[in-house]
Amino acid sequence: MRSAGRHFLQIPGPTNVPDRVLRAMDRPTIDHRSAEFADLAHRVFEGLKEVVGCSGPAVIYPSSGSGAWEAALVNTLSPGDEVLVYETGHFAKQWSEIASRLGLLPILIPGDWRSGADAQAIAENLAADGERSIKAVCVVHNETSTGCVTSVPDIRRAIDATGHPALLMVDTISSLGSMPYSADEWQVDVTIGGSQKGLMLPPGLSFNAVSEKALSASKHAALPKSYWSWEEMIAINAKGFFPYTPATNMLYGLAEALDMLNEEGLPNVFARHGRHAGATRHAVEAWGLEVQCNNLGDFSNTVTAVRMPEGHSADAFRKIVLDRFDMSLGNGLSKLADKVFRIGHLGDFNDLMLAGTLAGVEMGLALANVPHRPGGVQTALTALVNESA
Amino acid sequence: MRSAGRHFLQIPGPTNVPDRVLRAMDRPTIDHRSAEFADLAHRVFEGLKEVVGCSGPAVIYPSSGSGAWEAALVNTLSPGDEVLVYETGHFAKQWSEIASRLGLLPILIPGDWRSGADAQAIAENLAADGERSIKAVCVVHNETSTGCVTSVPDIRRAIDATGHPALLMVDTISSLGSMPYSADEWQVDVTIGGSQKGLMLPPGLSFNAVSEKALSASKHAALPKSYWSWEEMIAINAKGFFPYTPATNMLYGLAEALDMLNEEGLPNVFARHGRHAGATRHAVEAWGLEVQCNNLGDFSNTVTAVRMPEGHSADAFRKIVLDRFDMSLGNGLSKLADKVFRIGHLGDFNDLMLAGTLAGVEMGLALANVPHRPGGVQTALTALVNESA
Amino acid sequence: MRSAGRHFLQIPGPTNVPDRVLRAMDRPTIDHRSAEFADLAHRVFEGLKEVVGCSGPAVIYPSSGSGAWEAALVNTLSPGDEVLVYETGHFAKQWSEIASRLGLLPILIPGDWRSGADAQAIAENLAADGERSIKAVCVVHNETSTGCVTSVPDIRRAIDATGHPALLMVDTISSLGSMPYSADEWQVDVTIGGSQKGLMLPPGLSFNAVSEKALSASKHAALPKSYWSWEEMIAINAKGFFPYTPATNMLYGLAEALDMLNEEGLPNVFARHGRHAGATRHAVEAWGLEVQCNNLGDFSNTVTAVRMPEGHSADAFRKIVLDRFDMSLGNGLSKLADKVFRIGHLGDFNDLMLAGTLAGVEMGLALANVPHRPGGVQTALTALVNESA
Amino acid sequence: MRSAGRHFLQIPGPTNVPDRVLRAMDRPTIDHRSAEFADLAHRVFEGLKEVVGCSGPAVIYPSSGSGAWEAALVNTLSPGDEVLVYETGHFAKQWSEIASRLGLLPILIPGDWRSGADAQAIAENLAADGERSIKAVCVVHNETSTGCVTSVPDIRRAIDATGHPALLMVDTISSLGSMPYSADEWQVDVTIGGSQKGLMLPPGLSFNAVSEKALSASKHAALPKSYWSWEEMIAINAKGFFPYTPATNMLYGLAEALDMLNEEGLPNVFARHGRHAGATRHAVEAWGLEVQCNNLGDFSNTVTAVRMPEGHSADAFRKIVLDRFDMSLGNGLSKLADKVFRIGHLGDFNDLMLAGTLAGVEMGLALANVPHRPGGVQTALTALVNESA
Repeated sequence: MRSAGRHFLQIPGPTNVPDRVLRAMDRPTIDHRSAEFADLAHRVFEGLKEVVGCSGPAVIYPSSGSGAWEAALVNTLSPGDEVLVYETGHFAKQWSEIASRLGLLPILIPGDWRSGADAQAIAENLAADGERSIKAVCVVHNETSTGCVTSVPDIRRAIDATGHPALLMVDTISSLGSMPYSADEWQVDVTIGGSQKGLMLPPGLSFNAVSEKALSASKHAALPKSYWSWEEMIAINAKGFFPYTPATNMLYGLAEALDMLNEEGLPNVFARHGRHAGATRHAVEAWGLEVQCNNLGDFSNTVTAVRMPEGHSADAFRKIVLDRFDMSLGNGLSKLADKVFRIGHLGDFNDLMLAGTLAGVEMGLALANVPHRPGGVQTALTALVNESA
Repeated sequence: MRSAGRHFLQIPGPTNVPDRVLRAMDRPTIDHRSAEFADLAHRVFEGLKEVVGCSGPAVIYPSSGSGAWEAALVNTLSPGDEVLVYETGHFAKQWSEIASRLGLLPILIPGDWRSGADAQAIAENLAADGERSIKAVCVVHNETSTGCVTSVPDIRRAIDATGHPALLMVDTISSLGSMPYSADEWQVDVTIGGSQKGLMLPPGLSFNAVSEKALSASKHAALPKSYWSWEEMIAINAKGFFPYTPATNMLYGLAEALDMLNEEGLPNVFARHGRHAGATRHAVEAWGLEVQCNNLGDFSNTVTAVRMPEGHSADAFRKIVLDRFDMSLGNGLSKLADKVFRIGHLGDFNDLMLAGTLAGVEMGLALANVPHRPGGVQTALTALVNESA
Repeated sequence: MRSAGRHFLQIPGPTNVPDRVLRAMDRPTIDHRSAEFADLAHRVFEGLKEVVGCSGPAVIYPSSGSGAWEAALVNTLSPGDEVLVYETGHFAKQWSEIASRLGLLPILIPGDWRSGADAQAIAENLAADGERSIKAVCVVHNETSTGCVTSVPDIRRAIDATGHPALLMVDTISSLGSMPYSADEWQVDVTIGGSQKGLMLPPGLSFNAVSEKALSASKHAALPKSYWSWEEMIAINAKGFFPYTPATNMLYGLAEALDMLNEEGLPNVFARHGRHAGATRHAVEAWGLEVQCNNLGDFSNTVTAVRMPEGHSADAFRKIVLDRFDMSLGNGLSKLADKVFRIGHLGDFNDLMLAGTLAGVEMGLALANVPHRPGGVQTALTALVNESA
Repeated sequence: MRSAGRHFLQIPGPTNVPDRVLRAMDRPTIDHRSAEFADLAHRVFEGLKEVVGCSGPAVIYPSSGSGAWEAALVNTLSPGDEVLVYETGHFAKQWSEIASRLGLLPILIPGDWRSGADAQAIAENLAADGERSIKAVCVVHNETSTGCVTSVPDIRRAIDATGHPALLMVDTISSLGSMPYSADEWQVDVTIGGSQKGLMLPPGLSFNAVSEKALSASKHAALPKSYWSWEEMIAINAKGFFPYTPATNMLYGLAEALDMLNEEGLPNVFARHGRHAGATRHAVEAWGLEVQCNNLGDFSNTVTAVRMPEGHSADAFRKIVLDRFDMSLGNGLSKLADKVFRIGHLGDFNDLMLAGTLAGVEMGLALANVPHRPGGVQTALTALVNESA
């Protein structure tokens, strides 16, 4: 049976793609070697660099976000290099596994998946690395699996304090375009991004933003690479072209999405995400449930992972919400499987969509017989009314 | 500044057009004299007749709904004919004014705009019409300006009881496809419909469904007509064509919308509208506000008109809701201007969209300082959970 | 079996709707009583008036073009009024029949369907009308059924020479936006237009552009009217709204189409249509076939009707072209049925589309064994190359 | 100034994306971990395997076609492995360069870029490889830079004749879905494909189809890999999911495109491409120009590269065609730069689009003063009429 009305896609990405972006993509593909294409390319590079806050080159791959992880590594590192990864959650762990598959030696600093990366722990590891074997520090800005944010400036300061020359690589896949970020100001060497979250596109594009230091490192990086290679890419990009056929229609969408972010104004976009995250946490608290992130300052503005009371299945709950209210919520990943559900509140999203989302959660809790106090939605509404728009 | 997320179009029509319908319309126009077109035409006539519940011909005009009002009159009546109209609200009154402009003599039975048409009053008027000057009885099934429904079977019975031969014409513009209706079973002579409400299309198409009796009357109807004339239209429609260029892309959308209604199943569609109307009234009651319709049995399943407390402006409230929450609510019309606001809960709509809608109303009431009790949304959620989907 | 590639819709309207217009229409319907809507409405009225070349009001109906014919008549005339119509072809005749159905007395000046209207004949009829019973002169600017153009300035001069006060009404359905036209300069009292030809929209909108003189006439016009009534329409339009629900998504398309015409520049648009018509006639001549229009100065820039050699069926030929090359050509209407086929070369059209169109005709002639000389396409290409773009 | 009408995108890919595919992609992204997604995934894998003619797994990457080249290599080979590549043209050479960058040792058999791969030369190289150092033979089925086809069965037989165990890898990027191909029948170990040619999608997806033998090889392949790794991909694909976020909207398009190919019927699709290629060569011959492919049996059915007469610039010619006729033609690549132009006649294409394309070429030749005989279009039309559809 057909479900009436719009699906609520409240996983933490892909997000609800706005009509304007879909319609912009719904156009005939053009010659990727034409002047018209070059104009488009220049426009998206320009816009993307503003969102990333970088003055150096940005690279756009036709790939998922994990491609951009790989790209960051293969362009800067050599077989056997050590990389220091803080285990903020599932995605940090995945990144470290990818490093391992590529012939690098990841050092995974264990975390409890309930906070951002611990700058102190990173500093200690670097300080202990007298031989400077560690070539890169990898942190996930916003850990999508847990809803915990890492303070990148803190990491930067921690690295600087040790005087360690390792590159700093930051995964911003679920924060870019939703939370303040500045590659230049924070001196991030490689920023990794994707299209399908705050940038409001379907999945299919990923990004690297590259510092001078990372570019230098790439001259001597010995890992084999071709598709991901920055060198030819950056040289050809400068003219508005790509070394291989780009995903033209996705670039149409990206240009439109960047326009939309500018029309709203990035500070407004960030404030909106903050309001929605705050209201969501108020709701969770009102329900008497626990947020996965237990470090106050690390709460994510884009995704809230909610812990299920002992003895209750998050996946059974999510199934009820999907079947009954046509809303997709995020599942718990690896060790959090069935233990948390995740509410995505990012991208092209507004107060009434959030109200509908929280209503679906609250009604789902009731139908799934999950112990909770009603009233979370009402609490969120009060928060939304009281906080200035 | 751009508003993020989707606009909530909660006026009682045009409704939120589903993507499938928009995408179906987003196709090259075809030759309206081709076999491919004839297939399309046969398909939409077939489907439309099922929704109207009629075995006689349905006529589709490229026009707004008011064109279909005019069509019903000019095809069946002659200058100076009397038509009996029950004043359920703004739209009934408008229909009567149109009759007057066309050279007919409308008799408007006054109503207080807070209930459906009074079958007894209609019966009395007909009974008093010894000379059978009244040629048609016109009622609005669902009065969009007030949210009151008229029981068409009651009207039918009242007419039959008097033995009066007047035609029965029913405006279903804001009920068709959302509430049970059967032109055949209820012996309605002309059913008037439009595309932009329960049929989930943009505005631009209107309908007449015509009984045998109405067809007979049309043979002798002396009002001048050309564009609206059924005769040539029905003859040519039978072959899958139109006497003039049809609105082909709107017909694409209609075909898709009819498919969608069938995929959900009309009884399910009707039940869904009933659930949403019920939850909405629960919310209004919880807020301590008054619904415009004050006759229990006449509550509309597609639109709820809410009365503003004395001394408060409905339009000021609606402006706050629009500016702050990007939701359009319906305004009060003519004598209800600024006194009521109307919530449309029809078309392609689901529980979470309703929750978002009611949340916008409740937050708007707070921001506009309209005296009310919080908790309407919460009450509605409870109602939605408890009533089986 | 699916046909590959794009259909060639080379009937003389509806025309190939450009993607930009379809995509503009593929957007959620907005509240037709909102400020956003009023902006849209002002924009389309402004743009439409530029294309029509009128300073007085333009009226937009959700209807097919025949609705605008009816509107022109019912707003300005009274029962029994005489209207003088020159029979340029099928559509002029239809207009006259509509006048008749509405209670007017059309005087149809017979024509041979092979030229534009004869100004001299019109002048003679007016001069003979000592009692000034003729209230309107109706001419079709570009007769879509024959591909013959009427010189409106000639008609204007002929009327003026007689000193007759009749209104001048001009049907521009298949010329507007494709051929030079100026309601003000040519002192046309009512201009009739439609959306689905040079304006590049799907069918569903029609227009009236109204002179001061026509407005004055409308004060005393006694034909009954409501849907088509200018009075309320013009008053409400001034504020950016409509007396009944407008066809919002069609208006989105109209705004986009007007932008496109302006981006190309109307003089360029007109020149393009002229080049294509010229090249088409060169091809027809090269094939040794005859153009229906036999008056050199009256050749249409938007449609070419080609006469079939005696003993050959135009419809059989058209069917072969459709089945084999997926191209729709226009059929012969009423007395030209099966005797001519019509090539539409208007709207969003370019040289290569024309080449494909003429290629389809030439290959179809071969497959249908219609006597002709090959080489028409080649001749057209030479013409296109030689005439400056 | 805006160009009217549709752009003719006659580069040999990306091709003219059909509306149905664009519209299918123009839909909200869904949860890539939902049952609805799994249905979609199963459907596209099934359909893709039919087009490739393979019973083993097909892998779909969010990437351009060059990603699939890389994937074929890194999944099956180890550092220092030799790969034998026949230099059919630019793309074969690029593939060999990629192999080199990845740490493989390509042996490039030189070719003159005017024919398909020489099976005899490949056989000789393999026969001479007593140590079996060559691990893979790489050929491009349809060399997009030259319009020459390689007979894969011939290559297969040549390899088999030597008894050499090297894997056979075939790039079908510009042939898949346009020309007959069967990975199973021809015993191809890795087939490389892309979305933006015969599959009628925008660029952004690439494919590998994998034989049992290639799968076995992958168990011991030592090149580092993660994004491209088949192992996890194939395992997770079996359940309808992906190890990382897939390009969901591209998959919508792929599903639609596969439906379209089936509706037309693959044999009909192939025959259509053959007809169009034949007509194109007839035109080139009639113009007195030379086709780059000089081996009769190797003419491509999807792209025709035409040599410019000495002293004339292909790029100057292409610019005139673009500026004047809004058609994009393919440029000459690397050593063919400015020496050839390439006509793409593949994908969603029909007779009249081809006629328009050839008309644009012929008019461009005239405007660019390229010595040629007029009449190529006319010759092509005759060919199209005479060959059964």
